[in-house]
Amino acid sequence: MRRAVALAANGPAADPNPRVGCVLLGGDGEVIGEGWHRGAGTPHAELVALAEARAAGHDTRGGTAYVSLEPCNHTGRTGPCAEALVGAGIRRVAYALPDPNPVAVGGAQTLRSAGIRCDLVPVEGADALVEAFAHAMTHGRPFVTWKLAATIDGRSAARDGSSQWITGPAARADVHRLRATAGAIVVGTGTVLADDPRLTVRDADGSHHERQPLRVVVGRRDIPPTARVLDDGASSLLVRERDPHLVLATLHELDVRHVWLEGGPTTAAAWLRAGVVDRVVAYVAPALLGSGAAAVGDLGVATIADAHRLATTDVAVLDGDVRITLEPVDHLDHRDHLDHLDHLDHPGGQ
Amino acid sequence: MRRAVALAANGPAADPNPRVGCVLLGGDGEVIGEGWHRGAGTPHAELVALAEARAAGHDTRGGTAYVSLEPCNHTGRTGPCAEALVGAGIRRVAYALPDPNPVAVGGAQTLRSAGIRCDLVPVEGADALVEAFAHAMTHGRPFVTWKLAATIDGRSAARDGSSQWITGPAARADVHRLRATAGAIVVGTGTVLADDPRLTVRDADGSHHERQPLRVVVGRRDIPPTARVLDDGASSLLVRERDPHLVLATLHELDVRHVWLEGGPTTAAAWLRAGVVDRVVAYVAPALLGSGAAAVGDLGVATIADAHRLATTDVAVLDGDVRITLEPVDHLDHRDHLDHLDHLDHPGGQ
Repeated sequence: MRRAVALAANGPAADPNPRVGCVLLGGDGEVIGEGWHRGAGTPHAELVALAEARAAGHDTRGGTAYVSLEPCNHTGRTGPCAEALVGAGIRRVAYALPDPNPVAVGGAQTLRSAGIRCDLVPVEGADALVEAFAHAMTHGRPFVTWKLAATIDGRSAARDGSSQWITGPAARADVHRLRATAGAIVVGTGTVLADDPRLTVRDADGSHHERQPLRVVVGRRDIPPTARVLDDGASSLLVRERDPHLVLATLHELDVRHVWLEGGPTTAAAWLRAGVVDRVVAYVAPALLGSGAAAVGDLGVATIADAHRLATTDVAVLDGDVRITLEPVDHLDHRDHLDHLDHLDHPGGQ
Repeated sequence: MRRAVALAANGPAADPNPRVGCVLLGGDGEVIGEGWHRGAGTPHAELVALAEARAAGHDTRGGTAYVSLEPCNHTGRTGPCAEALVGAGIRRVAYALPDPNPVAVGGAQTLRSAGIRCDLVPVEGADALVEAFAHAMTHGRPFVTWKLAATIDGRSAARDGSSQWITGPAARADVHRLRATAGAIVVGTGTVLADDPRLTVRDADGSHHERQPLRVVVGRRDIPPTARVLDDGASSLLVRERDPHLVLATLHELDVRHVWLEGGPTTAAAWLRAGVVDRVVAYVAPALLGSGAAAVGDLGVATIADAHRLATTDVAVLDGDVRITLEPVDHLDHRDHLDHLDHLDHPGGQ
């Protein structure tokens, strides 16, 4: 099953479809086929593995399939995998996660009805691979990550509006790496007017990745036709709407599973107040400004007891910048997620 | 020598005197005495070790002394250690650090003039033990650590001024642990008027430590006689002066080696602008406020190129709060001090 999960990770993170991997064993227990899903419109992992086994002349009858996600039960752009496994004479199916898609669910039941033994075999890492997809299926909207870069004193720009660069090259490269896992990058019109960002995913040498997230500008203000976010580096979408729920509904319709929010203080505050921020990735730079725009605008918090409390789920140091990943406390049990951070205590002096 | 450094660490960190440890070996190479300095007014480490050796009936003649700091050469509250070692017939002295005190320096020369072999034997950790003392001797003023606690968006209080508590119990306990290493805790009158802090070093159960740093309130405004900083929990000093240089001169006269600055935004900005902050310890809480007092006031920075740049020297996670330790970049070579932080990358998911 670990191999199936490892294969799944080869798939595209930003795809509308979940990442799935499959390992097929023949009747004698030897591996006869492997596959992973390469993205919407291409065959599912199970079909890839079956095809590989057949191409090599293996007999799939009496075999076992290890799949990182419950085989699908519906006919989308490809036929239902559950039926394909039945047709191939597979005798046993193990899957690491139930299908979170209400339209596709029921694969395990279909298999069992056909007399195939079908077991849920949880394995670490399987859920992380389909996190955004599962969230979108469960909540009916994309998973939202808000990224901010600020100084120790919480400033995202100096008094004159300059913000390039608050963080160093390693942190900025990390942002591009994480942008690439999203289906869409969202900013407000204010950010476009102030910073004119490109919002593409680029390598350190400036070269564009082949697969680019959709660039989305939200808000009622006009942006100039020369704005770089409208260039030919990637597709762009202007949503003339400020309500985060409506923006997310639009993106959900477009099969976006993960939204990477890079909005300025006003947009970030609106999304936080709307309760739709599922993760915060804060790049804290070892610098002080003492004035300039704060990272986030008014949240309607008057007293400390009403602060937006989050839970720290990850901390990393990127060439001096500190990346702190946080999630709303109602998303998870705080303690559980902190256990693995214990070893960070006192890494150096003090 | 490592044993000498370990012994030194038993000494009081907040003392006017440096922490020193000593291991005495007899002529046959066996340990015959150990000692460490227990603070100003008590015997130096070398004298403690010599006394222990004699009390046990050992002959110190022909012996070797390992001392974590160059033996002193002057008569203060105790006689010069260099002469004591000569008088005891010690044949060889190894020390881990040269004496940074211009008044006491020359011990090694005195020993060599008496025909004793005297070697500098650097060992890791020796300098950290006398960091504040060495700084005070070299710069003629105490070492200054500014502590701040703020949210991810850099707020040290909510809009109504409330700030208890931004960070959690583990971070607050850590503050008390670090306060105890300072000779004085400094706040501005504004913090006293706003928060009425006690500024004592306390355990989690509220009990006071035996040794308390001097509590120092700086500024021209009057504070009420009922202010808790004036209670009987520790000594207090009111410095009716705002210039950080003058405040530090006063504290230097009082043999304070390490100042722990807990000032609010105005005081912190004044000390940062004066260039006297040698270390920043920032407790970043996993919370967002969106409004309220910033951690630091105006630094006179108008554009990003003029930001106060610091170097990250340590990162620790304290029950979800992230403690980031920083030093001015001119204090150290950035790269060197980051090497040991590499292993923090991606401790968890992502």
